[in-house]
Amino acid sequence: MTTTKLITHLPQEKMPYLLRRGDGERYLFGNQVATIIANAESTGDIFSAAVIGGPKGESFPMHTHPNTYESIYVMEGRVQFVIDGQSHLLLPGDYAHITPGTEHAYQLLGHRNSFISYSISGDITKVYPALGQSYEHIEYPPFTDHAYSEEHRRQAEQQADIVFSTGSTEFPAYELVSNHIVPDEVSNYVLESGEGIRLLTGDQVHRLLATQKTTDGAYIVVASDGPKGDEIVSHYHNHHTETFFCTQGRMTMWANDEEIQLFPGDFLHVPAGTVHSYRLDDHFTKVVGLLVSGLFEPFFRLLGDEYEHYMFPNNPGPARIDRLMENIDTLDLNVVGPPNSHQKK
Amino acid sequence: MTTTKLITHLPQEKMPYLLRRGDGERYLFGNQVATIIANAESTGDIFSAAVIGGPKGESFPMHTHPNTYESIYVMEGRVQFVIDGQSHLLLPGDYAHITPGTEHAYQLLGHRNSFISYSISGDITKVYPALGQSYEHIEYPPFTDHAYSEEHRRQAEQQADIVFSTGSTEFPAYELVSNHIVPDEVSNYVLESGEGIRLLTGDQVHRLLATQKTTDGAYIVVASDGPKGDEIVSHYHNHHTETFFCTQGRMTMWANDEEIQLFPGDFLHVPAGTVHSYRLDDHFTKVVGLLVSGLFEPFFRLLGDEYEHYMFPNNPGPARIDRLMENIDTLDLNVVGPPNSHQKK
Repeated sequence: MTTTKLITHLPQEKMPYLLRRGDGERYLFGNQVATIIANAESTGDIFSAAVIGGPKGESFPMHTHPNTYESIYVMEGRVQFVIDGQSHLLLPGDYAHITPGTEHAYQLLGHRNSFISYSISGDITKVYPALGQSYEHIEYPPFTDHAYSEEHRRQAEQQADIVFSTGSTEFPAYELVSNHIVPDEVSNYVLESGEGIRLLTGDQVHRLLATQKTTDGAYIVVASDGPKGDEIVSHYHNHHTETFFCTQGRMTMWANDEEIQLFPGDFLHVPAGTVHSYRLDDHFTKVVGLLVSGLFEPFFRLLGDEYEHYMFPNNPGPARIDRLMENIDTLDLNVVGPPNSHQKK
Repeated sequence: MTTTKLITHLPQEKMPYLLRRGDGERYLFGNQVATIIANAESTGDIFSAAVIGGPKGESFPMHTHPNTYESIYVMEGRVQFVIDGQSHLLLPGDYAHITPGTEHAYQLLGHRNSFISYSISGDITKVYPALGQSYEHIEYPPFTDHAYSEEHRRQAEQQADIVFSTGSTEFPAYELVSNHIVPDEVSNYVLESGEGIRLLTGDQVHRLLATQKTTDGAYIVVASDGPKGDEIVSHYHNHHTETFFCTQGRMTMWANDEEIQLFPGDFLHVPAGTVHSYRLDDHFTKVVGLLVSGLFEPFFRLLGDEYEHYMFPNNPGPARIDRLMENIDTLDLNVVGPPNSHQKK
């Protein structure tokens, strides 16, 4: 049997791929670095994603994406977002949901900041080559004289779903994020780290940060954490793409029978048709998933019960396999084999 | 040649040892877990250390350590510290310096919080077995009915250098930590993540968070970060103990010729006489060091130049080996061999 090794760079067509922290297409704009980890080509035009890093004082001016949702998950530092006039200070683990047509801007307030930006479905990562320059290093530099002009902004507007607002950008006094309510309609919101619709499946807590209702079905965002545990069943999906971005601890994944260890900042792209499974390997491992479209949300709600606490239990709770099996025909789920059934190479 | 494997539990006498994240002596007090990673026995009575984890709403009442310094480094969440009446919200990477005889208390405000507490020289980790109960799990539980009483507090006061304040503990409105000044005398202070006296040595930025002047010579705290790099020279110290607590990325260490990979949360205790060296293995790796006594501070100031930026440079700056060699007789430093000179086993 011939096995194709998993691609470890950003591919030019839709396929499974693995990017280690820092891998991807990198652009320097001002003193920030955007590392593009998914784009229209690599995902088959269904979403894009970039990790943004930069130092205190850097910002991005007020702008709108007329047709694109943006989901922000902060990993390091203190990141101020102004969204439709509301000013928030996002800390590690906090989430921001920005709907199409919403004015927003950000400013970096920690000495070191990083966040991931997912965009669905327009390819707003094309903004970065327009504003910035290709960058060979992994981390942003200590200082730079790079600046982008009005002309660069116009180029960005031509190449991506972005419209820069006129006038200067104001950053009003912020509040720390404390919201815990995921709306039941398409709207802008932020969520404090640990919040989201919490569902316990065995020893793992899944948090729905974005739902079919908040994205009009376009996608969901799920942050999951758990202790060292067992591998889940090997499976694939016919219709939806999944992504795994490890933010804490470490985990093992299998993709088309290739075994991969993920550490914080590593990203795995799992398009429809890819046989995959995972296992959490650290006492506290956290992984953020973007699932496009959002059709798989019922899986989490069927398998898991709503959970009032924030930390996973010492002894695993139930996983409602019975409810899953009753509804298996309505789910985009094909079970391939039990845990540990991978081809040995 | 016989090689003794490095101990991987908290030993009953002073020796080199490695504790993986979660390893150590664990105690549940309220809904918090204290994991003791160093104590009087394991360090030869020169310092102790515990990692504290817990959920939102947990707190520790106002108290004083009459004869002990405490150094706090936050790793996760939002941790409010009231220190001598000043109320601060510490975020990941923020540091608090608490001098002997200072009233202080804390409250956990994130859904998941963790910080490391170093205490010098009294063994305040004896507080946890007095207040709490031995705990088998690694992570704190989602909920608990454990509570400690006035009687438990009295026991803690008998066994450790702690005096609980009378009356109820108030947590006044806090401010985010923004201080960037390390005082030049023994006093209480906090430092924003990224601050400290910054010294560039080659490709690494060392930040002095506590100095001989702020500890009366008792110890120093150094937070260092850098990119993937080369191994430093293999060396040992005659007089001072070093510790390495990895908080981000990953690194390789050698201790008495044993090779160890450190991941976030892993702790290596390196008492005087232990031959050791290290290498940073991730694009951004961060390690926090406690050095007791503080006599090694001149090493960092001789080898490094003060650095105005916060991120390490893309191209390594100078390392002033010349200044080091001129003063080598005054430093507690014995070079054993060049990088990669370890015994092959």
